[in-house]
Amino acid sequence: MLFLVRMDVYVPHDLPAEQANEIKAREKAYSQDLQRDGRWPHLWRVVGEYANYSIFDVASNDELHQLLQGLPLFPFMKISVTPLAKHPSAI
Amino acid sequence: MLFLVRMDVYVPHDLPAEQANEIKAREKAYSQDLQRDGRWPHLWRVVGEYANYSIFDVASNDELHQLLQGLPLFPFMKISVTPLAKHPSAI
Amino acid sequence: MLFLVRMDVYVPHDLPAEQANEIKAREKAYSQDLQRDGRWPHLWRVVGEYANYSIFDVASNDELHQLLQGLPLFPFMKISVTPLAKHPSAI
Amino acid sequence: MLFLVRMDVYVPHDLPAEQANEIKAREKAYSQDLQRDGRWPHLWRVVGEYANYSIFDVASNDELHQLLQGLPLFPFMKISVTPLAKHPSAI
Amino acid sequence: MLFLVRMDVYVPHDLPAEQANEIKAREKAYSQDLQRDGRWPHLWRVVGEYANYSIFDVASNDELHQLLQGLPLFPFMKISVTPLAKHPSAI
Amino acid sequence: MLFLVRMDVYVPHDLPAEQANEIKAREKAYSQDLQRDGRWPHLWRVVGEYANYSIFDVASNDELHQLLQGLPLFPFMKISVTPLAKHPSAI
Amino acid sequence: MLFLVRMDVYVPHDLPAEQANEIKAREKAYSQDLQRDGRWPHLWRVVGEYANYSIFDVASNDELHQLLQGLPLFPFMKISVTPLAKHPSAI
Amino acid sequence: MLFLVRMDVYVPHDLPAEQANEIKAREKAYSQDLQRDGRWPHLWRVVGEYANYSIFDVASNDELHQLLQGLPLFPFMKISVTPLAKHPSAI
Amino acid sequence: MLFLVRMDVYVPHDLPAEQANEIKAREKAYSQDLQRDGRWPHLWRVVGEYANYSIFDVASNDELHQLLQGLPLFPFMKISVTPLAKHPSAI
Amino acid sequence: MLFLVRMDVYVPHDLPAEQANEIKAREKAYSQDLQRDGRWPHLWRVVGEYANYSIFDVASNDELHQLLQGLPLFPFMKISVTPLAKHPSAI
Repeated sequence: MLFLVRMDVYVPHDLPAEQANEIKAREKAYSQDLQRDGRWPHLWRVVGEYANYSIFDVASNDELHQLLQGLPLFPFMKISVTPLAKHPSAI
Repeated sequence: MLFLVRMDVYVPHDLPAEQANEIKAREKAYSQDLQRDGRWPHLWRVVGEYANYSIFDVASNDELHQLLQGLPLFPFMKISVTPLAKHPSAI
Repeated sequence: MLFLVRMDVYVPHDLPAEQANEIKAREKAYSQDLQRDGRWPHLWRVVGEYANYSIFDVASNDELHQLLQGLPLFPFMKISVTPLAKHPSAI
Repeated sequence: MLFLVRMDVYVPHDLPAEQANEIKAREKAYSQDLQRDGRWPHLWRVVGEYANYSIFDVASNDELHQLLQGLPLFPFMKISVTPLAKHPSAI
Repeated sequence: MLFLVRMDVYVPHDLPAEQANEIKAREKAYSQDLQRDGRWPHLWRVVGEYANYSIFDVASNDELHQLLQGLPLFPFMKISVTPLAKHPSAI
Repeated sequence: MLFLVRMDVYVPHDLPAEQANEIKAREKAYSQDLQRDGRWPHLWRVVGEYANYSIFDVASNDELHQLLQGLPLFPFMKISVTPLAKHPSAI
Repeated sequence: MLFLVRMDVYVPHDLPAEQANEIKAREKAYSQDLQRDGRWPHLWRVVGEYANYSIFDVASNDELHQLLQGLPLFPFMKISVTPLAKHPSAI
Repeated sequence: MLFLVRMDVYVPHDLPAEQANEIKAREKAYSQDLQRDGRWPHLWRVVGEYANYSIFDVASNDELHQLLQGLPLFPFMKISVTPLAKHPSAI
Repeated sequence: MLFLVRMDVYVPHDLPAEQANEIKAREKAYSQDLQRDGRWPHLWRVVGEYANYSIFDVASNDELHQLLQGLPLFPFMKISVTPLAKHPSAI
Repeated sequence: MLFLVRMDVYVPHDLPAEQANEIKAREKAYSQDLQRDGRWPHLWRVVGEYANYSIFDVASNDELHQLLQGLPLFPFMKISVTPLAKHPSAI
């Protein structure tokens, strides 16, 4: 089951750089684990923004929420989720 | 070069059904040709809406505009385009 | 799997009353069938508006889209869908 | 009398973790008391967001405001309230 | 129980004048009946707009929806409802 | 001359509690003085929000601005003002 | 007492040209009468739009509404009104 | 003096095709005259939309309004104008 | 050449009062100089807001930007600029 | 390939002035390098705002993102990107 997810990152400028970097490193590892196991099949940068559009492939709403809530950057992101369905013209 | 495109369709209710159906049939064929030649790699329905999110893979902005403007439903759609780039965490 | 759905109805004022009434009668029957089979467990009117908030309980995004797209008033509605998950404080 | 309530939580990142956790623990207990006494019959997480949609069942606007204002997280939330009525097609 | 209600009227310009006037005459009578029986205690024109802000005093959400839905101009209005509570500084 | 005024209060979480309480106490006294002299005839809480809708009855725009600017919470509020006129259907 | 007023004109494209021209001629005369008597001291075109920003100088909200509602183009305009006060730095 | 101008075209679907084509032909000629005389130095299509971003180089606000108001498609466009100034980092 | 300018002031609550007062004093002097030399012919307070609407009369976009950028409160303001033209009905 | 880019700068008021100035100096040098090599052909100030509209001429979305992400002010800017295509009426 597919979902389009947009994530906008807002790291406060007074967060210590060391702490920010540690969070971003964990975020990268977390994201790559999910890409490898097939649940995060697409991850694209939005040009000019500290943001991404992603496709998630999960079995349920609950699974998607668990994945997103577990993102190390979750407290510093605005996330919006759009459920997708099969398009009748898709081949 | 990838772009995320959202298309919302607004067919006026006083458009004759026959004319609407003919346009939609041409839209489907046009879309499937582009899917087959690789320039429209993803096409998803937005759940609950007469709308889709799509990924286009084209060589230039001009090529993308030619493809979109050629959609038979183009006069009845609101389209928004987001340019995408490679994400540093994408594998 | 639960979804919150908001539907806003816009019936054009130049739609013949007879046709509008026939559509609304079919909408009511369609809605009550889904309520009875458990897939549309809640349906509430938004006070002061020709709109409703509903809860749908379905197995997938595709199933939800099929249900919504089949609504007789679908061509005359603006629909927005919010996927819901279990809340950690819910009992 | 039913109301749909959406709560979005914004905990400032410079609030000490201990204080934040203490508030969240009180929030959970407060919420579960109201769920048990029937005035907060539904509580759902919005997928991907630190937010919930809830249904409240109260006798008056004043009662609802007292309940919401008493939430331990109230100073850190944006809340919006939609009054609901019986839908003529609801069974 | 008090509610603030804003009504914006959009009468289509191709509605025959006679029909529009008949609806407005019924609207006025309907409104004055409710003002007299105490359920519509305030009705103000928004300066420069074909719109009003009103206060309704009703026993329930359902009663408010019945009153608003019964407005002869209901099909030509956008209505938004804000539930009000007693303010702790109100005398 | 009547005006509908909406006030949304945003007290910064790092304002010392003592200072906040002192401002709120002065706000309450200020508000009740104006209610008693007839220039602030209605004051309602918006359900679920740290906000109010109020009716002011003043002789001029300048008088209204002086009253609002004098509110002890003025630096911590977003205020919007809607001028009201007599409605032709008001009794 | 001063008010800033913005008027956006939307003349439906299927209004007969003769009727539109007659309304615009009356609008011009109406506007110039009010400019001459001092109640409409400023009238500016918004560059690139069929819209104006105006200053009105009236004795009350009711007087302003009467003037605006009397505009021959009133049924085809969206109007927004901002009450103005003396600025402490104005000379 | 430079201005960024965005024009969104909305041709009603019930405008006869012949009339629409005649207007568009005049629009093209009008636009090219202004491009040649240097007052419309840039004209770009917004990808995927029936819209353009343009740069105008004119001596005054009045001159810009005259040029825009004279566009044959003016009655069918939404136009927004942003005044531009020299940037201190521009070379 | 006239421009309508709206300025909304947001002074951070943790700016020392002395510093804020010094900036506001310079702002007042700066504003009154421009009012006296005719380039800032109108300055009005928006009722209920820490904001103003102003009319500027300048020779070019560059001149306007220089004036606005020089405002002592410029770093603490959101400014929006609307170019104005002569209205055909203005007398 | 052309893109219209709008950049809005928000430098936090508690960023030390020395640090802010150092970033702005690097921003200016970075911007002028790109203007000289032809990839940033236009850079305009938005009148009255700490913002610019720019035209970028790049070979791909990825190249544009690299350029924008490399801006020294990138962490303090909101950037929006609009892809542009050749306009059929452009000469």
